[in-house]
Amino acid sequence: MDGYYAFMLVATALVLMMTVPALALFYGGMTRSKSVLNMMMMSYVAFAVAAIVFVLWGWSEGWGGDGVGNSNGKLIADPFTMFGLDGVSWGSYVGVLFQLTFAAITVALISGAIADRVKLSSWIVFVPIWLTLCYFPVAHNVWGGGWLSSHWVAQDYAGGTVVHINAGIAGGVLALIIGRRLGFAKEPMRPHNLTLTMIGAGLLWFGWYGFNVGSIVFVAGDGAEKDTAQFMTETGVTFMNTTIATCTAMLAWLLMERILHGKATSLGAASGIVAGLVAITPSCGAVSLVGAIVIGAVAGAACAAAVGLKFRFGLDDSLDVVGVHLVGGLVGTLLIGFLSTASAPGGINGLFYGGGFTSLGHQTIAALFTIVWTGVLTTVIALLIKVTIGWRVTEEAEVEGIDSDQHGESAYDLHGGLSGGSSSSPTSVLAKSTVTEGVNA
Amino acid sequence: MDGYYAFMLVATALVLMMTVPALALFYGGMTRSKSVLNMMMMSYVAFAVAAIVFVLWGWSEGWGGDGVGNSNGKLIADPFTMFGLDGVSWGSYVGVLFQLTFAAITVALISGAIADRVKLSSWIVFVPIWLTLCYFPVAHNVWGGGWLSSHWVAQDYAGGTVVHINAGIAGGVLALIIGRRLGFAKEPMRPHNLTLTMIGAGLLWFGWYGFNVGSIVFVAGDGAEKDTAQFMTETGVTFMNTTIATCTAMLAWLLMERILHGKATSLGAASGIVAGLVAITPSCGAVSLVGAIVIGAVAGAACAAAVGLKFRFGLDDSLDVVGVHLVGGLVGTLLIGFLSTASAPGGINGLFYGGGFTSLGHQTIAALFTIVWTGVLTTVIALLIKVTIGWRVTEEAEVEGIDSDQHGESAYDLHGGLSGGSSSSPTSVLAKSTVTEGVNA
Amino acid sequence: MDGYYAFMLVATALVLMMTVPALALFYGGMTRSKSVLNMMMMSYVAFAVAAIVFVLWGWSEGWGGDGVGNSNGKLIADPFTMFGLDGVSWGSYVGVLFQLTFAAITVALISGAIADRVKLSSWIVFVPIWLTLCYFPVAHNVWGGGWLSSHWVAQDYAGGTVVHINAGIAGGVLALIIGRRLGFAKEPMRPHNLTLTMIGAGLLWFGWYGFNVGSIVFVAGDGAEKDTAQFMTETGVTFMNTTIATCTAMLAWLLMERILHGKATSLGAASGIVAGLVAITPSCGAVSLVGAIVIGAVAGAACAAAVGLKFRFGLDDSLDVVGVHLVGGLVGTLLIGFLSTASAPGGINGLFYGGGFTSLGHQTIAALFTIVWTGVLTTVIALLIKVTIGWRVTEEAEVEGIDSDQHGESAYDLHGGLSGGSSSSPTSVLAKSTVTEGVNA
Repeated sequence: MDGYYAFMLVATALVLMMTVPALALFYGGMTRSKSVLNMMMMSYVAFAVAAIVFVLWGWSEGWGGDGVGNSNGKLIADPFTMFGLDGVSWGSYVGVLFQLTFAAITVALISGAIADRVKLSSWIVFVPIWLTLCYFPVAHNVWGGGWLSSHWVAQDYAGGTVVHINAGIAGGVLALIIGRRLGFAKEPMRPHNLTLTMIGAGLLWFGWYGFNVGSIVFVAGDGAEKDTAQFMTETGVTFMNTTIATCTAMLAWLLMERILHGKATSLGAASGIVAGLVAITPSCGAVSLVGAIVIGAVAGAACAAAVGLKFRFGLDDSLDVVGVHLVGGLVGTLLIGFLSTASAPGGINGLFYGGGFTSLGHQTIAALFTIVWTGVLTTVIALLIKVTIGWRVTEEAEVEGIDSDQHGESAYDLHGGLSGGSSSSPTSVLAKSTVTEGVNA
Repeated sequence: MDGYYAFMLVATALVLMMTVPALALFYGGMTRSKSVLNMMMMSYVAFAVAAIVFVLWGWSEGWGGDGVGNSNGKLIADPFTMFGLDGVSWGSYVGVLFQLTFAAITVALISGAIADRVKLSSWIVFVPIWLTLCYFPVAHNVWGGGWLSSHWVAQDYAGGTVVHINAGIAGGVLALIIGRRLGFAKEPMRPHNLTLTMIGAGLLWFGWYGFNVGSIVFVAGDGAEKDTAQFMTETGVTFMNTTIATCTAMLAWLLMERILHGKATSLGAASGIVAGLVAITPSCGAVSLVGAIVIGAVAGAACAAAVGLKFRFGLDDSLDVVGVHLVGGLVGTLLIGFLSTASAPGGINGLFYGGGFTSLGHQTIAALFTIVWTGVLTTVIALLIKVTIGWRVTEEAEVEGIDSDQHGESAYDLHGGLSGGSSSSPTSVLAKSTVTEGVNA
Repeated sequence: MDGYYAFMLVATALVLMMTVPALALFYGGMTRSKSVLNMMMMSYVAFAVAAIVFVLWGWSEGWGGDGVGNSNGKLIADPFTMFGLDGVSWGSYVGVLFQLTFAAITVALISGAIADRVKLSSWIVFVPIWLTLCYFPVAHNVWGGGWLSSHWVAQDYAGGTVVHINAGIAGGVLALIIGRRLGFAKEPMRPHNLTLTMIGAGLLWFGWYGFNVGSIVFVAGDGAEKDTAQFMTETGVTFMNTTIATCTAMLAWLLMERILHGKATSLGAASGIVAGLVAITPSCGAVSLVGAIVIGAVAGAACAAAVGLKFRFGLDDSLDVVGVHLVGGLVGTLLIGFLSTASAPGGINGLFYGGGFTSLGHQTIAALFTIVWTGVLTTVIALLIKVTIGWRVTEEAEVEGIDSDQHGESAYDLHGGLSGGSSSSPTSVLAKSTVTEGVNA
């Protein structure tokens, strides 16, 4: 079989791995120890629900116009034309799955903004509604031949608008409507296990080659369209841009920390990696090595500055979804307008390469479209859930710990075993052990 | 080179990664903190021993008939025909290695049933004997052209019988013969670090695409036999089935927990992922999307129900090898008889697709063959070890901790460093530090 | 596109993953809990700095001769000929990136020798200087057509000299010049979290298939040069050798521990895995299965013996960079002289295969060249840094913890959350929380 397809198989598995377990680890390590399992569960459950929704109506609603031709140019595609992948050949399934993993990680990203305080049941209700009203329409308009892309073609290789701006604005809206954690900005809420966050950031980086390089290969279509040399050129620059922007962003974030706070942190390194990856996501196929360096440096510095603002505005975007994904996504999406070069796979010159304001205009429109569309609809969804089933666990549960309240579990029992039981361990208050391994004989 | 082969290289590495470190993490997190290193070591050592055994006589004993033709149709192949891979071309080595990784993870899976109480030396004795008497013969009969498959051709793409039923029945037998942990069903034996279990489940899922999709590609043989379009069709449905069955099983397990115990747990999510993957392992190339949804849902619910039964029967299958691998393997293997469709790569219609009882009969025979063969021989092996070198560590060692007793180590020393020493830490009782980094000047 | 290239894309991502996060985890778990973040940061920052340096002048300085032809046979290539990858086509970028990941992990490996006591700023200064004076020249001489390889062609497929001997000798020199940790050989300095070390070892093993098999495929050049069958032969034996040598080394290390200390440890298993991988790195394409078994066994035993010597010599090579990478690298590099077989991809017979002493001589020269070159220059660099900006943190900082001193963080806050704050937790002394999530409103 063609090497194009061999790579897509691997890329799809890599992007799945980004949500389960990489993002769950990245986020889980940043929460308090009483909340880590709930945080990880939000990613795991989001993936499962997103996958079911995607094969039922997501593919049809996002990419239906391609297969059938009747939703090209429309604002919303018909979610029922290919319901349950009806009419989709098995030979196209890996392409469907590749897109499925993007939808899953996008909604999972949102969970970082509302850590430690939301009922699992409310989250399970939110995921399919948000995908249906926000993700699939935006994906359709940017990638699937919808209304937006039929008027203004923005470059967005792997999801600066569809994934990161989308998740970032949704996270901000949810954090605002759901409200702050008890004790926010009053008591310390330090990451409970930064080694998990570091593992998560590392695995996200690894998986991101499936995300970015896979997107370039996905767009290139089947192996018949382009030969090895052309693939090597397009993936070469994409792989390089993804790598260098990430390194630059990590160093820029650490430098900002050093300047602003005196010390460079491991949380900063992990966050810088993600900020760089976010910003190069839309631009990986649009710019050259110089562009990637600039985008990485700007993203690292801008996101490092942005994450401190939440305390100024009193917005408990707990794990900085706005600061990293909205800001990083905007940096990458808008800098394309300046740094895009016609020699890159995208073939479009930005402002600095003599292309005038056209590219910058299209990029701005796509970013604004995403912000407005998802900002408005996420507000509606969040308010509806708030006034019906409600979002938050009880105050007692939030203080005692959401892992115990929602899952009947605690993540760690590091000492109990040593004395032959856990009666005196600090975590034993949670040892109700409903279905966990042990005493329910 | 052909893309088929590029994918097999990656798939083989992925399946290796499933044992080291993924399975070790999945299991290690579920034990008590005094046993985690021993649990992880059982996987690591099992892989190393299995690899040596496999290249010496395992390939010959399992697949010898293919190369030489003299063991086709026989119950047992000659382990010496290709001893040390004699006569196997280097060009076939990756195929050999792909199968090697399956043998290794299968025997490693068994270790979960006997956590926390077995001597490392006894485990090292058990691994090669079990592979020789149980794994290679079953693999030969199901996959390697042996007696069973020459009479009744069951569909088992990636190891519902050979891997999961095989490991599951062996685990149950060992747990019965070796006996319960001290305090089983009396005192809580909660997972000591569920973040490890979550990482493990996530990495297992990631690696499982090497397992399932790799198996489909392995069967398809070299790139000359099938073109890209046919590969895309066969791997497309396999990849889709693997993904969707896993998601469905996770949600089904969580729903069962919610109904039975009131709360959905992260251990349930991790276990549900594995249950779904187990059940879709044999069936990934036999069914369509609808079939995968049914198999996932049934597996998730059935395994969630099954894991509670060990307390009723007093069987200390510590980490639920029977409940997940035997039950999940049976669900996947037998449901093929109902849900198999001729449009899938296997090309066989099951009962619900108008194929009558033939497929169900063949699937049942293969499952029973595995259960009887491995059940009987594992009993013999386990009893022989019991009456000779013995299985269990001393009672004192089991109470104090098997990590300390068998390895002279403890997994964690999270506080010692902060005060410049570990004298007052909860783990310092284990700080004998035989060969660990430090004081043996 | 050709399958060759699909594999190189994945291999490059795998080798990146070896540094971030795998090596960081392997090392991080072995430090004390007060130092784990600093240890991980040394790998993460090393990667970022190495990547920038590599695209600016590293590729030119190491491989410039290939592209331009004017540095073939020279001791040092011109770092400015292709400064900033000037003149390098995008189609070659993935090859550049593949080599970039090797440079990054090599310098990151060194950090294990000087754990827990070095200022981050000094490390950031050291990394680019060492790469420039030691890594790129050695790579040029062994791999890039430089002086050494134009006189004596040694076999070094994936970096026995360039990576492991290179990092090993540099680590030894740094440990000597920078000096011992406070309390070395007096108080226990046990690994604080062996589960991290086990994850790291497992992921390193997984990624090493990118390292070794990728190197064979990289050398084979584009798909036009060799057909699938030849690729299958060359990668088959490489993949097999890598797997079996690793398993043999793990078992040999455990056996040595059992004999010398009475107990086989998980740290030994993890270290044995890495020792085997190190030794098979140069030899993976030079020997047959029998050779791989010998190399693995010798490496496992030799490294297990070597790591104890640091206490005898009073050299605080904290995480055994000399004992594993220098010794393991020498074992692999020199045993090629005995075990190399002309039937392997290298096509050269060693002493035991009737090739006389030629191969052994060339291997010895390459090893000595690396030791002398890097030994001398690393001494110069280390002394210069020592007398200028200095290497070490203050004694108070070393006692209190380098994570707190250099990064203002502590890795774990496992109990704080449970009581709604961290005031009484053992880690609260570090809760200055400069920029970490929480109180800087």
